[in-house]
Amino acid sequence: MESENSYRHLLKWGDKREEGISHHMAEVIRAKFSLTEAVFRSKHLPGTEPVKLEKPPMIKPAQLEFLRGICGSGNVLTDDLSRARFSCGKFYGELLGLRLGLVPDPPDAVVAPRTHEEVEKVIAYCSDEMIAVVPAGGLSSVTGAIRAPHGGIALDLTKHLNRIMTVNKVNKTVTVQSGMYGPALEKELNSQGYSCGHFPQSFEYSTVGGWISARGAGQASTGYGKIEDMLVAIRAVTPAGVIETKDYPRTAQGWDLFRLFAGAEGTLGVITEATLHIFNHAPQNTASAAFIFRSFEAAVETMRRIIQSECGKPHLFRISDPDETDIAFKTSGFDGTLADKALAILGFKAGSRCLMFATVEGERDYARFVLNKIKRKVRAGKGMYIGTSPVRKWLDQRYSSAYMRDPLMDLGIMTDTLETAVTWDKLLKVWKAAHEYVARRPKAFLMIHISHVYENGANLYFTFLSPMQKGNEAQDFAVFHRGLVDTILENGGSISHHHGVGRVLAPWMEGHLGKNSMELLGAVKKHLDPNNIMNPGGTLGML
Amino acid sequence: MESENSYRHLLKWGDKREEGISHHMAEVIRAKFSLTEAVFRSKHLPGTEPVKLEKPPMIKPAQLEFLRGICGSGNVLTDDLSRARFSCGKFYGELLGLRLGLVPDPPDAVVAPRTHEEVEKVIAYCSDEMIAVVPAGGLSSVTGAIRAPHGGIALDLTKHLNRIMTVNKVNKTVTVQSGMYGPALEKELNSQGYSCGHFPQSFEYSTVGGWISARGAGQASTGYGKIEDMLVAIRAVTPAGVIETKDYPRTAQGWDLFRLFAGAEGTLGVITEATLHIFNHAPQNTASAAFIFRSFEAAVETMRRIIQSECGKPHLFRISDPDETDIAFKTSGFDGTLADKALAILGFKAGSRCLMFATVEGERDYARFVLNKIKRKVRAGKGMYIGTSPVRKWLDQRYSSAYMRDPLMDLGIMTDTLETAVTWDKLLKVWKAAHEYVARRPKAFLMIHISHVYENGANLYFTFLSPMQKGNEAQDFAVFHRGLVDTILENGGSISHHHGVGRVLAPWMEGHLGKNSMELLGAVKKHLDPNNIMNPGGTLGML
Repeated sequence: MESENSYRHLLKWGDKREEGISHHMAEVIRAKFSLTEAVFRSKHLPGTEPVKLEKPPMIKPAQLEFLRGICGSGNVLTDDLSRARFSCGKFYGELLGLRLGLVPDPPDAVVAPRTHEEVEKVIAYCSDEMIAVVPAGGLSSVTGAIRAPHGGIALDLTKHLNRIMTVNKVNKTVTVQSGMYGPALEKELNSQGYSCGHFPQSFEYSTVGGWISARGAGQASTGYGKIEDMLVAIRAVTPAGVIETKDYPRTAQGWDLFRLFAGAEGTLGVITEATLHIFNHAPQNTASAAFIFRSFEAAVETMRRIIQSECGKPHLFRISDPDETDIAFKTSGFDGTLADKALAILGFKAGSRCLMFATVEGERDYARFVLNKIKRKVRAGKGMYIGTSPVRKWLDQRYSSAYMRDPLMDLGIMTDTLETAVTWDKLLKVWKAAHEYVARRPKAFLMIHISHVYENGANLYFTFLSPMQKGNEAQDFAVFHRGLVDTILENGGSISHHHGVGRVLAPWMEGHLGKNSMELLGAVKKHLDPNNIMNPGGTLGML
Repeated sequence: MESENSYRHLLKWGDKREEGISHHMAEVIRAKFSLTEAVFRSKHLPGTEPVKLEKPPMIKPAQLEFLRGICGSGNVLTDDLSRARFSCGKFYGELLGLRLGLVPDPPDAVVAPRTHEEVEKVIAYCSDEMIAVVPAGGLSSVTGAIRAPHGGIALDLTKHLNRIMTVNKVNKTVTVQSGMYGPALEKELNSQGYSCGHFPQSFEYSTVGGWISARGAGQASTGYGKIEDMLVAIRAVTPAGVIETKDYPRTAQGWDLFRLFAGAEGTLGVITEATLHIFNHAPQNTASAAFIFRSFEAAVETMRRIIQSECGKPHLFRISDPDETDIAFKTSGFDGTLADKALAILGFKAGSRCLMFATVEGERDYARFVLNKIKRKVRAGKGMYIGTSPVRKWLDQRYSSAYMRDPLMDLGIMTDTLETAVTWDKLLKVWKAAHEYVARRPKAFLMIHISHVYENGANLYFTFLSPMQKGNEAQDFAVFHRGLVDTILENGGSISHHHGVGRVLAPWMEGHLGKNSMELLGAVKKHLDPNNIMNPGGTLGML
């Protein structure tokens, strides 16, 4: 058992699904990377040492005293474990660092304000005193957005600012504090007949404020939209004062100020409350279907035709490319069954076949009508309906793959995910280029899926696995990762569709957006945060 | 016949539908305002004098010469008529001014650049020389957004920058120059099987750049979205350089820069190109229905239930309140017919009954399915289906009411429109308060409709008519108009849903948005336009 004050404890989500990988997955990994039994019995870089920070706090005792005066002394923590916990998110490079005993960017203290007004006081004080502030939600960032390279304080919004303020049933909106976790929000909304509609893979350990700050997307975003599409109004504390917007459906009174905070990653201020659209909770109405196609190209072409056909939209809409489909079949135990052989005879051959999943939500007859439209279009695109159970099985483990990283790392496997948004006319080019790039690394493996679909394009989501280069784990990963990002961008992909930029992808921002656009981002930042205290040190490519 | 260089010529759209009002409408007006035959034979404030500007140009001859060097001498106009034409839009107060021979804010010259690169050169030069620049499209602004109180140049984008650059059939987008008018864009898209989906009442005389700058909404926006929802990417020239964004479906790489230009009303720079979503052009598939309700409250409640029920959306979705329904029945000749009497017997009585229109577009069976869902919900809400012909008739004259203002003003009738976005929980309050306000003016008349519908609210659109106060037309209008805006805002409405703010509604901006938000708008403006040359002098509440 690892100790509660170990690095190993910090790098985990705290979820029992992290304890190990499934038998089927173990077999796949064993075969793919020729792992020995010894590897499965030991743990590579286990990180079992107790956490001990080298970096002394830079904050002054009088400053801590002042913050304690605002938030209460129990809400200002300075112990090593708290500082280390708030020094990073769940980026692979950060987890690797923890296993190596590295905590390069801890805050000096973790402060948990109890009210919006306390946030105002903390921000005003920190701006005056030039103390860096990193707003923190569920710490699930995979882009290095939660780090304190300039020290200062991490603002723990989950401890107190974690409640629903109002559910407005007439307007079908919820006003919620930013530190509320997904499951708590969804549970309360369900009890009133609603759903938040936003189910990112990090759902179980992420917060409303994090969703907005990173511009996340839920697994049913094709129907419900990304978090910025759900966002109606915001209340945020900036060093230049409170920005509070109203909950109008749309306006034409300048541009929407609340939109600046969607994707700002804590660099402009602290979101304390948000008003979001909510949706009817009627899971019994959901119509779902799994399909199989003979090639990725055919599946993508059909997906594009469906989303562009103006006959209602699916909510969940996914394609797994041949490599991901292959793993899905192997880990589900489908591989080699009679049904598998039948598929191959019909031309759906391993190595080229692709799974597509769709669900349609809403009123019962509507969901069925739209799903039938989709089924007809799939048939026209030479895809085949293969029932609903693959979708149900996928939904049952919809958040699980995030919890596999830790046991894979124990096996010495490097694994990370990247994602991009790309227009339809460039999607296959990016897909091919990414596979070609990863194929150049011996024993590396890449799976790609599409999971968020729009009229003019979609995302591509990349999951790669490869044995770590023992003794050179961090540098090897950094180089490989950089090359994959370069490949995606050079072929027409964007920096991110829904993970965000953070510090990890910041180096690509100016080249991608251009100097004028970066300066415009910087001007907004400069106005709202003149002393550069809000999440400083590289996030989004800002200073 | 009025002369082509008269004020009267300037204030018209140049559309033959402006020549007079229908027989039915004349009867309604005659009865409502007790107009005599003499009034119908004469013209109040006809504005037939030739245009003559008092204000001398402030631009220097050498500056004009430089601009001619960039754009060609035929593309720099300084005659009084051109200057007067680009001195205003179609706000009632401006039209009244023209009838009174007033052109208070003419530009010094009208410059028509031929390319994006010429716009760059013009803006760089004007910024250096501190020459004000007012970007101009169709001059259909009803908010005073097109005025040159600081002189300088009006940028006529319609003369040359009026073409489609590309129709991307794979991504289902169009990239179009900002000066292209609606009908030309739609005609070209239709020929390729697409539609722009954006049909504001000003459609026939407005441009893509104007739609974006004012954040307009088309009549089918409930299905297709407002222009900012259709906007994918932008190319804009600012004094701080070119801001060009990419056509990704969504991203998470900071906030979307293109969104700043939606609603900026020319204060940040000149949009030269935009990429927009396009839609399938299949009018033969459209399913439509007209309904009648016994009260506005019942119609609104049903509309809210429909839009919140998650069973597909209508594209056009409207309710006319009892006063507007009454006028619609009278001007269509329906009033007093047997069918009218039958409706009354069924409880749909004049003075309280309300019309609702809905169309659903898209694939044929989808449109019918969703319309049938709407019909069932209308029945549940005690509304009655009354066929499709009222919708067809309305669509036939969908742009016409804008052309009635000039003949009404000839009759000495003051008439203007205002509009607001409001959440469902405040909609009836704003509706009632506006009627109460207008009822306090003797012989004033207000019609209200809802025409853009969202999950959390809708717009309210106000059309008022009243005899002018002869000899005090402008001041009387200003006071009455101000009171109506105050009433809307005090009861929970927004400044604008889709007309924009301009100079007319600018005085309400800071009170409504708050000081911090106004300063944030100003900071973006200051960064992109440090010398304040872009549409200066009050637009959006900026200096």
